[in-house]
Amino acid sequence: MPRFFIDENALRGDIITVTGGDAVHIGRSLRMRIGDEITFCREGKEFICTIDNITSDKVFCRVNKTVSSQCEPTLSLTVFQAFPKGDKAELIIQKCTELGASEIVFFISKRCVSRPEGKSAENKISRFEKIAEEAAKQSGRGKIPIIRGILTFEEAVNKLRKMQLPLFCYENGGKSFSEISFDGITECGVMIGSEGGFDSDEADSVTQLGITSLWLGKRILRCETCPIAVTAVIMNLTGNF
Amino acid sequence: MPRFFIDENALRGDIITVTGGDAVHIGRSLRMRIGDEITFCREGKEFICTIDNITSDKVFCRVNKTVSSQCEPTLSLTVFQAFPKGDKAELIIQKCTELGASEIVFFISKRCVSRPEGKSAENKISRFEKIAEEAAKQSGRGKIPIIRGILTFEEAVNKLRKMQLPLFCYENGGKSFSEISFDGITECGVMIGSEGGFDSDEADSVTQLGITSLWLGKRILRCETCPIAVTAVIMNLTGNF
Repeated sequence: MPRFFIDENALRGDIITVTGGDAVHIGRSLRMRIGDEITFCREGKEFICTIDNITSDKVFCRVNKTVSSQCEPTLSLTVFQAFPKGDKAELIIQKCTELGASEIVFFISKRCVSRPEGKSAENKISRFEKIAEEAAKQSGRGKIPIIRGILTFEEAVNKLRKMQLPLFCYENGGKSFSEISFDGITECGVMIGSEGGFDSDEADSVTQLGITSLWLGKRILRCETCPIAVTAVIMNLTGNF
Repeated sequence: MPRFFIDENALRGDIITVTGGDAVHIGRSLRMRIGDEITFCREGKEFICTIDNITSDKVFCRVNKTVSSQCEPTLSLTVFQAFPKGDKAELIIQKCTELGASEIVFFISKRCVSRPEGKSAENKISRFEKIAEEAAKQSGRGKIPIIRGILTFEEAVNKLRKMQLPLFCYENGGKSFSEISFDGITECGVMIGSEGGFDSDEADSVTQLGITSLWLGKRILRCETCPIAVTAVIMNLTGNF
């Protein structure tokens, strides 16, 4: 059954009204008709609907059943990623969405080469949101990960420190996964560097806050490989695979 | 210290002779000189050397010390990947190499869309070997993963079944990671489908051999995300992260 995400304004009573690109997609590309079944998702809920009416630019659907998404992980995982070069951010968003991340926060650290600001940063975030939505749809997620950014290093650390289990990936050492307990953890944040990793001052400022450093072993992972691998391992360690 | 992989003919006694592109890279790009230290790797061994002489197309190095690579995982992991479309094979090779895979075997299954044969397949494998070497160098691996292919489905299954722990990723169900024991496992093979997944006949033929099906949960992973995530999780489960 086709699945679409809706925003908060789409649902009124037991009627979902779809407009814009999704309406065109449902009516013209998928050629769906009155009476066809369709699923809408929002914030971890799934609305199983029947199409009531289709106009040239709107689709009206009746909600038959509302269920919790069966595909959302029990863990809320936020990936804090220092902004990478080229199109690596896109790859990170797509893969971390499939693997179950709840939020991806981009920030600028000392060694970031690409440092988008202002309108350019805003445009990137808009594009990233579309990539997250596309990946959420394709992988059967019940919600679209939030894309946030582009924060300063300090802003990102302030957000990270408030998490139930904050982790800081550092290539110069720290605890391995086997030394970190995920028992009872429902919220985790993990901070990952850009191509050049973190400056030692940055690392000190994070560990001084009592945030655990995570060490991924002796092989050097590229900055885009690290968030994907870490998300996969944490989802497995918390029973979400 | 710069690191290069050498082939078996490069080492004679305690002298390593480098020719070809690497010799040019050492002499011209890196501007290394007589007396400089350099490391060569082969099959999980590292040779710590001093440069004895440099000519326009050769570099002669003396081995001072031979050590086992500290970066190789204790697990030998073979990824059996049904041939994917586009440039996904390159991404899989690069990421699985960084994460520690020993071998990547490509094969053709019923639902593969891209089915290279003959010269085209040979050319692809040659390019893939270069990608594996590059990723091995960059991530500090002690050996370059073997790239094999392109096998038939039957050939791949025959190779998989001989492994100590053969696993078959199947989206229609199987054991989760928590139900599979990796205790004492030193050799693991994991088979992954292409975009369309596996046909039910293919799945039956594999499970009838007693090979364990691995289920990665309800979220649908793209065919290139699966090998990366599985390699990361297995490396963590075997203490290699």
